[in-house]
Amino acid sequence: MAKQLTSRKENYSQWYNDLVIKADLAENSAVRGSMVIKPYGYAIWEKMQSVLDTMFKDTGHQNAYFPLFIPKSFFSKEASHVEGFAKECAVVTHYRLKTDENGEIVVDETAKLEEELIVRPTSETIIWDTYRKWVQSYRDLPILVNQWANVVRWEMRTRLFLRTSEFLWQEGHTAHATKSEALEEAEKMVGVYANFAEKWMGLPVLVGVKSPNERFAGAVETYCIEALMQDGKALQAGTSHFLGQNFAKAFDVQYVSRENKKEYVWATSWGVSTRLIGALIMAHSDDKGLVLPPKIAPIQVVIVPIFRNDEQLTAISEKVDGIVKDLKAKGISVKFDDRDTHKPGFKFAEWELKGVPVRLAIGPRDLENGTVEVARRDTLEKEILQMTDIAEKIENLLVKIQDNIFQKALLFRDDNTFTVDTWEEFDNQIKQGGFVRAHWDGTPETEQLIKEKTKATIRVIPVDEKMEEGKCILTGKPSKQRVIFAKSY
Amino acid sequence: MAKQLTSRKENYSQWYNDLVIKADLAENSAVRGSMVIKPYGYAIWEKMQSVLDTMFKDTGHQNAYFPLFIPKSFFSKEASHVEGFAKECAVVTHYRLKTDENGEIVVDETAKLEEELIVRPTSETIIWDTYRKWVQSYRDLPILVNQWANVVRWEMRTRLFLRTSEFLWQEGHTAHATKSEALEEAEKMVGVYANFAEKWMGLPVLVGVKSPNERFAGAVETYCIEALMQDGKALQAGTSHFLGQNFAKAFDVQYVSRENKKEYVWATSWGVSTRLIGALIMAHSDDKGLVLPPKIAPIQVVIVPIFRNDEQLTAISEKVDGIVKDLKAKGISVKFDDRDTHKPGFKFAEWELKGVPVRLAIGPRDLENGTVEVARRDTLEKEILQMTDIAEKIENLLVKIQDNIFQKALLFRDDNTFTVDTWEEFDNQIKQGGFVRAHWDGTPETEQLIKEKTKATIRVIPVDEKMEEGKCILTGKPSKQRVIFAKSY
Repeated sequence: MAKQLTSRKENYSQWYNDLVIKADLAENSAVRGSMVIKPYGYAIWEKMQSVLDTMFKDTGHQNAYFPLFIPKSFFSKEASHVEGFAKECAVVTHYRLKTDENGEIVVDETAKLEEELIVRPTSETIIWDTYRKWVQSYRDLPILVNQWANVVRWEMRTRLFLRTSEFLWQEGHTAHATKSEALEEAEKMVGVYANFAEKWMGLPVLVGVKSPNERFAGAVETYCIEALMQDGKALQAGTSHFLGQNFAKAFDVQYVSRENKKEYVWATSWGVSTRLIGALIMAHSDDKGLVLPPKIAPIQVVIVPIFRNDEQLTAISEKVDGIVKDLKAKGISVKFDDRDTHKPGFKFAEWELKGVPVRLAIGPRDLENGTVEVARRDTLEKEILQMTDIAEKIENLLVKIQDNIFQKALLFRDDNTFTVDTWEEFDNQIKQGGFVRAHWDGTPETEQLIKEKTKATIRVIPVDEKMEEGKCILTGKPSKQRVIFAKSY
Repeated sequence: MAKQLTSRKENYSQWYNDLVIKADLAENSAVRGSMVIKPYGYAIWEKMQSVLDTMFKDTGHQNAYFPLFIPKSFFSKEASHVEGFAKECAVVTHYRLKTDENGEIVVDETAKLEEELIVRPTSETIIWDTYRKWVQSYRDLPILVNQWANVVRWEMRTRLFLRTSEFLWQEGHTAHATKSEALEEAEKMVGVYANFAEKWMGLPVLVGVKSPNERFAGAVETYCIEALMQDGKALQAGTSHFLGQNFAKAFDVQYVSRENKKEYVWATSWGVSTRLIGALIMAHSDDKGLVLPPKIAPIQVVIVPIFRNDEQLTAISEKVDGIVKDLKAKGISVKFDDRDTHKPGFKFAEWELKGVPVRLAIGPRDLENGTVEVARRDTLEKEILQMTDIAEKIENLLVKIQDNIFQKALLFRDDNTFTVDTWEEFDNQIKQGGFVRAHWDGTPETEQLIKEKTKATIRVIPVDEKMEEGKCILTGKPSKQRVIFAKSY
């Protein structure tokens, strides 16, 4: 088997890298830090996009498109934002190349920009500069806009999907007349993300807010969804920010209220990225390859014919045509792998590697008996089923698989969530991984100190965590609520 | 009327600019040369994307994503390509900003890239550098990949949608084992574009090849679709290039054939961009605003209630709910404009400006009579119809409007296509506009001379133009076929 993976146990990090490459999801490009998303990986992203885009539209949002380039000066306008974002980024300084006397292509120094342009790391600044022109009266609000785009944050140490200099994402940017409406929006959108993660990606997530240290640069409150990977590390899968009036003040976006008073506008922004593909891989996959939840799988069913000659293939193909038609009528995506260049065993391994939820195998014997072999990717179980109503059986099986993948991940998370009360317990558990529920005194200084000692951060202050008096694991000072610590991606 | 447009007759160019702004399609951004595509304009682009994406997939293509940045040296590898593309482009030279001693954000000179990165003006180079790794054997071919992306070509004089420094597009990049297969692909895709333009955008197009002067930099043959705008200027609406083995040789992409011989791979690339929105506007719209073909209109039907009080509005709304439901069941997008902040006359003008194909108006009298007023955007005709089967009537009307918009544009093009045989006729006609069919001696020098004298270029050598001996209008030398000249966007 040329395509065998490193096992998770042996080297989790290597297993992930192998899997991304061997399942044909993505690869590193000639441009340091930038990835090529290959067709199979991109098809997963398209599925995600399509579902999320519908969810955004169903909640009243429209798409638009804002410039890739942002004038450098825009970043200086919101003080905490510039600290967080305007540092590691791609800077455009010139707008022309020329051929020099040696015939080499060089930068034309006469074509230097007066003001450098930054390739967007996120678009709050350019968008709020635009909203100033869109908003005069309360009648112009709310603005509920989303953008699908590429962004660039210069990274020295990159990993495919998880951290690359360029990545794809969506960024929602909304403007509201009141604080409560903006807060409601920020909460609504983290809810959309949680729903998407759990119902579509089969990924259980904790929903809550970030501590001040982990907040988005420029936000008043950052809501997030946080998931646990199989190696016990946390992964932030989506964030939704209540930005207060910070950007409205920085870009002077005011509206005339019903009471005819000038007021600053309230803002939110929210985003998920191709990082979700990394989360999907690390949450569900195994040593044989990807395990894709049916609702996100580009191919939900693959059919492999078992044949020794053309005559057998023809007979099988005729039967398969009917099955394919029935499956497609139910909206199920199906691939008939009738290549004669590879043996069934090779195909089985390949589709396992690529995480196709259901595999059907049909041979001459099956034709005689009216049967088909059905294999589940999630449990690797196989059974022989009667061909009768096969499309309906598979439809039900896909629902079962979707649910099983979620339940398995939920069980894993429950088994790897720990409650500790002392520093020793905490330090020990963090070393072993998992979500660690612990008391914290609420200060950024303590969180920073814990991070320095253990590399763990507060991943989320969960909204559904019950209030409970206690003492900070590090300082012993009083705490009102446990928070979730973990090491993270 | 605050939103009145400059008329086409008065100033066509101003009419276009007014319309783009006032119909809320797009606006100039704070970044010189870059536009903001507003939600209504972006919704048109989403419609185009959705149809084209399906067409691409139906012809066997898959989407993928390649890096935004291209190393400068890549452009030097294909000699004619660099001439065409690597000149006016955005150059990234640094990857970090810092705060200087005065608290200003400045470029960190220590973070200078060893090799400058070019923001992609088109992706042949980075993609063919990648394909080298994907292709070993004939079994790896063909590669049929498309990318939806933003690209940047630095422009000094910009116009919204027609010419901006950053724009959105799709670029297909395919790799084939044989020349004939690549040629077939390039022809197939220009056919897809022609079909899309005519059947969906209602835009009649000439299909053919470009003269060498107008060919894509790096192409062996450029196929194109060319449309005529209402001011008599031509607009290139899409191109498909047969690239021969130029990029395969430049990036050393070879495969082992069935005969076990190493061969260079054959290539195509093809693209359409947000420029299509400019074509759509200029081909069909009038002095009252946009005229959108139903198949591309984000909103196909708008319903305006005529009411004096809440009671009337409630009664109308109940009736409208049923109509909306019936229309949606037929896949027709409909908006009920029940705003109480604006009068019906204002709404009528606004939806005319935005080009919604069908407007329904319903007042208390209509409720009594079981009628509805139906207005067509394309002809501005109104009629009173019985409410019975109204959804079906509208469905049929939309088909009629789609057809009428195409026929009108076709008639306009026919009326503005001229056949000339002398230089005097030619020179005269070019001044007045339109497609001009004329003989040309086939040399780049003559085409260049004609361009210098008249600003007209050969827009297309049509595939369906019959062979006909003649004499070049400028040089009198022999010609075998008339070609299409015009001034163009």
